[in-house]
Amino acid sequence: MQEKTFTVAGGGPVGTLLAISLARHGYRVGLFEGRPDSRQTSIYQGRSINIALSDRGWTSLEKVGISADVKADAIPMYHRAIHGIDSEISKLPYGKEGDAIWSVSRGGINERLLDIADAEPNIETHFEQRLVNVDFKTASAVFRTEGEREVTVNADYLFGADGANSKVRRLAQNLPRFSYSQTYMPQSYIELNIPANVDGSHQLEKNALHIWPRKDFMLIALPNTDGTFTCTLFLNYSGDPSFETLQKRSDVEAFFESNFPDAMAYLERPVDMFMEKTASPLFLVQVFPWSFNRKVALIGDAAHAIVPFYGQGMNCGFEDCAELHSLISKYNHDWDEIFPAYEKARKPNGDAIAELSKRNFVEMSDLSGDPMFQLRKKIEAKFHEAHPDIWTPLYSMVTFSPEVPYSEALRVGDVQQQIMDQIMQLPDIDSDWDKSCVMDQLYKLAAEQL
Amino acid sequence: MQEKTFTVAGGGPVGTLLAISLARHGYRVGLFEGRPDSRQTSIYQGRSINIALSDRGWTSLEKVGISADVKADAIPMYHRAIHGIDSEISKLPYGKEGDAIWSVSRGGINERLLDIADAEPNIETHFEQRLVNVDFKTASAVFRTEGEREVTVNADYLFGADGANSKVRRLAQNLPRFSYSQTYMPQSYIELNIPANVDGSHQLEKNALHIWPRKDFMLIALPNTDGTFTCTLFLNYSGDPSFETLQKRSDVEAFFESNFPDAMAYLERPVDMFMEKTASPLFLVQVFPWSFNRKVALIGDAAHAIVPFYGQGMNCGFEDCAELHSLISKYNHDWDEIFPAYEKARKPNGDAIAELSKRNFVEMSDLSGDPMFQLRKKIEAKFHEAHPDIWTPLYSMVTFSPEVPYSEALRVGDVQQQIMDQIMQLPDIDSDWDKSCVMDQLYKLAAEQL
Repeated sequence: MQEKTFTVAGGGPVGTLLAISLARHGYRVGLFEGRPDSRQTSIYQGRSINIALSDRGWTSLEKVGISADVKADAIPMYHRAIHGIDSEISKLPYGKEGDAIWSVSRGGINERLLDIADAEPNIETHFEQRLVNVDFKTASAVFRTEGEREVTVNADYLFGADGANSKVRRLAQNLPRFSYSQTYMPQSYIELNIPANVDGSHQLEKNALHIWPRKDFMLIALPNTDGTFTCTLFLNYSGDPSFETLQKRSDVEAFFESNFPDAMAYLERPVDMFMEKTASPLFLVQVFPWSFNRKVALIGDAAHAIVPFYGQGMNCGFEDCAELHSLISKYNHDWDEIFPAYEKARKPNGDAIAELSKRNFVEMSDLSGDPMFQLRKKIEAKFHEAHPDIWTPLYSMVTFSPEVPYSEALRVGDVQQQIMDQIMQLPDIDSDWDKSCVMDQLYKLAAEQL
Repeated sequence: MQEKTFTVAGGGPVGTLLAISLARHGYRVGLFEGRPDSRQTSIYQGRSINIALSDRGWTSLEKVGISADVKADAIPMYHRAIHGIDSEISKLPYGKEGDAIWSVSRGGINERLLDIADAEPNIETHFEQRLVNVDFKTASAVFRTEGEREVTVNADYLFGADGANSKVRRLAQNLPRFSYSQTYMPQSYIELNIPANVDGSHQLEKNALHIWPRKDFMLIALPNTDGTFTCTLFLNYSGDPSFETLQKRSDVEAFFESNFPDAMAYLERPVDMFMEKTASPLFLVQVFPWSFNRKVALIGDAAHAIVPFYGQGMNCGFEDCAELHSLISKYNHDWDEIFPAYEKARKPNGDAIAELSKRNFVEMSDLSGDPMFQLRKKIEAKFHEAHPDIWTPLYSMVTFSPEVPYSEALRVGDVQQQIMDQIMQLPDIDSDWDKSCVMDQLYKLAAEQL
């Protein structure tokens, strides 16, 4: 049992996994969450959100000792199902045969982790306690209960795992030399729904991530275990078309019918939903440092909120936890070493996945519907199969190669893109793409540049 | 006389110039400053800061109708005086014969502008009233007096001219879709002093900006009218050498003596000063939007705090005022048009001068002491003289060409740099540089690319 104690602000998936990791290293942990315990309340707690988890997430959970049975409720998605404007559907695999990203319920995985935390005697979990203040010198924190009572919590260290709108990060803005940015994307989003068939089965192919790419905007759908799909419409906040300009019901109807003709058969009252809902903004957060006075640190979205277009947000937060988990052992509980090593290891990866995620909007909303882009993917996949030691496509490095840091994936991906730009300019590439001369040329360029 | 009224938060040079501009357009203006009126207090108000003003600043003052006599107290600096480590001094002109940047006292120009504001019947100036809150829907603001009394000020519009640490900007962080970043530079700084000779004359050449470029750090000195120089030591916050590592008196002595041997004869107790003072950080601020609900806007450092390495901070703030001044006429007092036009015109220029200023640290602290860099400047100057319509060096575009927007200077400067990179690779460029073949080649490249 360690003497030192921790406060973790934020009982979402990342905060809860961190608490479990710290407890398993022998620390006493107070885990504080502003919202009620979703396991205790029958009232609907907000939007049903599902997110993508992939190998980085699973690997990170394993490293902290979470057994693979959290995967039971997850649905593998083996390919993108691209819905053309002509209602034709084409398949674009995510990786090689068997590679999948997984659709999981954010609430579901959070509750499973909370159950595991409850079984750890070192963790004391508090709900409905909102963080009000942090003393960055002592790691002492003030929380406010629903009854507006203020509670001061003293611990040796504090982690802010309190998400994209982190209060800990907001408070850190008063510290000297704290660099921070919060950058809004042009797109906002609303969530829509595709109900299940009466027999509980899925109306669209279950094991796919469905995309309706329309260049400046897109609709996507991820499967849920109850036969429904949670859909997200990403659309510019202003301009034409946008949430700002689509105000009249007739305009919204025309927008859906002309852009998503096949989806109209499945979507639950999309026009009503569009009219009723307020679009949520998308923003990126980048800060440095991630730790303060070797007493307080940020983790997960609190340190690096990203846009959802690579499906890596929670994966990255879980990786933060796994990195810390191994650094605690490596530095034998010396937190004067652990905090700087943690931010040094993770900051470049947070920045890299932020950049990759931003870029991937174009890939999803525009390129994924482009035949030349699909051909490019096919060439890369074929070459990867022949030379897995030389070439792993960027998407696979990010998603299926937890051993490759995000920062390395970004670097290598940029070189690969230059090479593929040259390959795609070969004459008759669309007919000759799987001839050996193309593969030889690719091999030559890869050997020179990678 | 206009019906609408304005609150201007911040009575520094930019806020005061803005108030004058608004008053001259017929608006009633409340100008609020947190500090005491420096004209009324005999106590020393803080550091004596001098800054560089150049053509953009003077032109902007003229556009608002401020007569050229504010220039009387300014000292023209015609060249950089580069102090080598061997105590040799070399001259590097800022532009063509007669071009100068001007050393002015920040306090002095502020007081002159406040005097002009006092003469405007439409302006009511309030000191020692600190901004506490802003209602971004109504432009109503709350100020707190020194006696801790709170005063609510209602006006139709509010400008935050409250500087790099703007409270208005801080409050705006709670607004939806407000993107903001505050980024610390590796360098911090302290101010030092070179006293006057006993007869009141300057110990160093008066009409120059003195630089001791030492690659990762530098000392600079700007002349004051009383014969003194205000010096600034820019040095990394951490690393070696840095403010963090230079703690022992003997180390500080050795640092000064080995790096600034000639300056040691002039500087006033530099080692004591270094030991006593706390280094100030340098940071960049970038935000968008600059206006909110067509009621509240940011101007000057509040919208775009930059680093001081181009000497453009106050010039850029004055340009904001001049742009607004002309937009009020252009849009005939329609603020629903003026606010968006203002931020659209100024944001790209704020971003461009931020980038240029960051880059200029390298130019000042490293390249200015490099003979090949000085040669590059000579070649550009000669070509500019022969073909002023084709080529104006970047420094001159930024500093002596108010008709060229910062954003255009940045764009053209990048093309020029590529061209000069090629020119500097010509064989025997150091001996042949002013031969006609070099000038011809430069002409050819410029004609192709510019």
